[in-house]
Amino acid sequence: MPANAYHKLEELFAKLLRIEDAIAILQWDAAVMMPKASAPARGEEIATLKGLHHKLLAGPSVASLICKANNLDMDDWQRANLAEMSRQWIHAHAVPARLIEALARATSACEMVWREARARGDFKSVRKSLEKVVALTREAGEAKAEPLGVTPYEALMDLYEPEASEKRIDPLFADLEAFIAQTLPRVLDRQKGAPPPALGPVPEARQKLLGRKLMEVIGFDFSKGRLDESAHPFSGGTPYDVRITTRYDEAEPLKSLMGVAHETGHALYEMNLPEAWRHQPVGRARGMGMHESQSLIVEMQACRSVEFTRFLAPLLRDMLGGSGPEWQADALLRRLTWVSPGFIRVDADELTYSAHVILRYRLERDMIRGALKVSDLPEAWNEGMRRLLNIVPASDAQGCLQDIHWYDGAIGYFPSYTLGALAAAQLFQAAGKAMPDLRGKLEQGDFSPLMTWLKTHVHGQGCKGSSDEILERATGHPLDAGFFKAHIEQRYLNSDNY
Amino acid sequence: MPANAYHKLEELFAKLLRIEDAIAILQWDAAVMMPKASAPARGEEIATLKGLHHKLLAGPSVASLICKANNLDMDDWQRANLAEMSRQWIHAHAVPARLIEALARATSACEMVWREARARGDFKSVRKSLEKVVALTREAGEAKAEPLGVTPYEALMDLYEPEASEKRIDPLFADLEAFIAQTLPRVLDRQKGAPPPALGPVPEARQKLLGRKLMEVIGFDFSKGRLDESAHPFSGGTPYDVRITTRYDEAEPLKSLMGVAHETGHALYEMNLPEAWRHQPVGRARGMGMHESQSLIVEMQACRSVEFTRFLAPLLRDMLGGSGPEWQADALLRRLTWVSPGFIRVDADELTYSAHVILRYRLERDMIRGALKVSDLPEAWNEGMRRLLNIVPASDAQGCLQDIHWYDGAIGYFPSYTLGALAAAQLFQAAGKAMPDLRGKLEQGDFSPLMTWLKTHVHGQGCKGSSDEILERATGHPLDAGFFKAHIEQRYLNSDNY
Repeated sequence: MPANAYHKLEELFAKLLRIEDAIAILQWDAAVMMPKASAPARGEEIATLKGLHHKLLAGPSVASLICKANNLDMDDWQRANLAEMSRQWIHAHAVPARLIEALARATSACEMVWREARARGDFKSVRKSLEKVVALTREAGEAKAEPLGVTPYEALMDLYEPEASEKRIDPLFADLEAFIAQTLPRVLDRQKGAPPPALGPVPEARQKLLGRKLMEVIGFDFSKGRLDESAHPFSGGTPYDVRITTRYDEAEPLKSLMGVAHETGHALYEMNLPEAWRHQPVGRARGMGMHESQSLIVEMQACRSVEFTRFLAPLLRDMLGGSGPEWQADALLRRLTWVSPGFIRVDADELTYSAHVILRYRLERDMIRGALKVSDLPEAWNEGMRRLLNIVPASDAQGCLQDIHWYDGAIGYFPSYTLGALAAAQLFQAAGKAMPDLRGKLEQGDFSPLMTWLKTHVHGQGCKGSSDEILERATGHPLDAGFFKAHIEQRYLNSDNY
Repeated sequence: MPANAYHKLEELFAKLLRIEDAIAILQWDAAVMMPKASAPARGEEIATLKGLHHKLLAGPSVASLICKANNLDMDDWQRANLAEMSRQWIHAHAVPARLIEALARATSACEMVWREARARGDFKSVRKSLEKVVALTREAGEAKAEPLGVTPYEALMDLYEPEASEKRIDPLFADLEAFIAQTLPRVLDRQKGAPPPALGPVPEARQKLLGRKLMEVIGFDFSKGRLDESAHPFSGGTPYDVRITTRYDEAEPLKSLMGVAHETGHALYEMNLPEAWRHQPVGRARGMGMHESQSLIVEMQACRSVEFTRFLAPLLRDMLGGSGPEWQADALLRRLTWVSPGFIRVDADELTYSAHVILRYRLERDMIRGALKVSDLPEAWNEGMRRLLNIVPASDAQGCLQDIHWYDGAIGYFPSYTLGALAAAQLFQAAGKAMPDLRGKLEQGDFSPLMTWLKTHVHGQGCKGSSDEILERATGHPLDAGFFKAHIEQRYLNSDNY
């Protein structure tokens, strides 16, 4: 049987994924293993593979295969696969090679300047570099907007969270802002005194054993993945070889432990992708929003629940040799759910975290629209922080210089974090409805009901449908912030245990 | 200025090297870091990159660029670069894609069968798989023989040791065989009693610190490389990021230590390749023979010398906390230079090692010629061992099944080991002549004169000329076994210290 257009596409995209997977391992290595002085050569190697990938993907012959394949009979998975191929082709084809190269150079230069600027809290020194990155990124967004049929900023979001729309996110985030404004003072009022003291010092080696134990409890398969250390924890590798990292703070083992829980949530999404399709685009993770929902359902919904802390507290005492009141389940829960508005996003609790994202979403959207000048960014940032959390950073290092994203060209990424937090609450409540004993199982350290449910309803769905379609099939509703708000109210305002 | 043919070739080959370097890191990762279950996916990733590499290299447009470039004015480095490009193109172009794929499948299947067969000492079970590999490898050799202007077996050697010839190696190895036959009984006679006892047990962590210390003494730059563990020690990575491995035997720290010395010799060759040219073929290592000479000059010539053991013995006592007669320099030297004919190549001393290589050279040459049937291999092996070392293995596991090379398709590789041993002796004696204080410096733990000399005369030469040309420029002679024989006689027959 001669290969038809669809089969030819499957062959091509399998090859593209193998190149992407090779790049993922090289990037993991660069963050975890590589000696520093090798960075420039590694940059060249990865750029070369990306160039080969782009050349294979972006050509007009791929488009004509997609057009031909559209007319063929195929099942739902194949149809969804073709849709994902088409989306990837548009992203690759829309941006001319000249612009890709200019962006690569501009972001790489800007990132270097940013590291210095952040260390000195000196926004001015990076302003020009960022202006260039924003201008070029806007150009890329504009180039993709028409073929995708969306706004330039939506075209940028689409790379991370397909089909995310401003019309949808604007009111969603406005509603969340109001909820935070209303809820935060009540939580802070109820949350008297200080958080329990840190559990350290605990040597790294013990924290590592504990982290591995928690990964096993959650369901991580060490025959297909690794745990390592890196300066910035992440989940990397491939669905066949999932690699997460953490960093250890001897003074507080809960930091690395909750980091490991978070990354293990990401990892299980990858490990549970549909076996039959993971060599094709449709068999890969849906997007960054759905990915974040899986890290947060493990970390925030499950591991910081009152039930799981009852399992976790004796495990911590056993493995870390602790004793005293701060090692009891109630103190542990209090520490794991302590709310405290601060300047730094990555240190934020789950209530104020969304405020950090809302701020960044509005600022980056406006920069791409041209409604906010890069030179006005620090002031707009501080004004937004005052409005959202009623605090103002003393330095841009704690303000608009804190995150690498913009300086690295990742504009359009931030909303995924909060879309993921909302989806996590929605999925966890649906799972609890489907399995009334879910929380009881977590109290016994049994993640398998939750993970089996997620594998069926999320992980195993790959890209079969949009995030909203997957969510609706899984929970009966498209994304709805009501579940997140209910979760916050239950955990922080109505619970006796807290 | 428009790019001329030569500049276009430089651009292409820089890209090819970046792909090769990416593959090298993925292979290192597979041996050192990768979870076992990820092996099939990694195999696909590497095969995909190799396929892209081959497609870029093997086409006729590359040949026409080479033809055009041949007529251009260029300096010696560029001319040597073009020669190396040409050689690589012939290797890539001569073998049709069908044969490359058949070889990849046959060797991958044969290697798996071999692992089982070796474990059971059952040659018959792997015979058919090996016949297929030999037949396909012969076909590849025949395809390359004409364009390279050599015999099929020489074409296979050329991949590892360019310009190696049967006419040259046949008498060289016959002479070495006679030398071993004459020398070995005299050494064994002189070497009375038993070797000193092993220095262990020493925990892995201490051996690792000691290994790193020795690497620093030799000149390894840890800002551009790593030391790790793997089942089979090797030197991998790229010239920008050199990664060596070892394995630890708690009972005998000298095993990993000498392994580390050996791989560090390989590593320094890579680290010292010409800075201005290492992004081009001419700036890479000359071949496997020259590479082995660099590992052996460090391990065999320098680290096992009477002078260096005087530096090493107190270091071992300090770092491993040892005391007693076996920790004295004379006992250490005796242990490091103990001669003992055995069945296993990788455990052999430097005198009997060549016998193992001579045997394999003759057998693989005859298999490719069709003068030796695969089914007759075990008998021919045992007959050869009787003739060369007067011992006969009781099982093929200790005979023709011991090495992975043939079963993995690496036919033509073995001679490099002994060519390297001969070159190492020749280079070390030339360096000693140029710097009369060389051995005195080693006694102080100072490798810098040796390494500076090697950087100038070998490492920094890249592929500028053949192995023989590099050797002749460095030592005043083409490859000559006389230096190796003189070294063996001095160390094992004439020295007082031993």
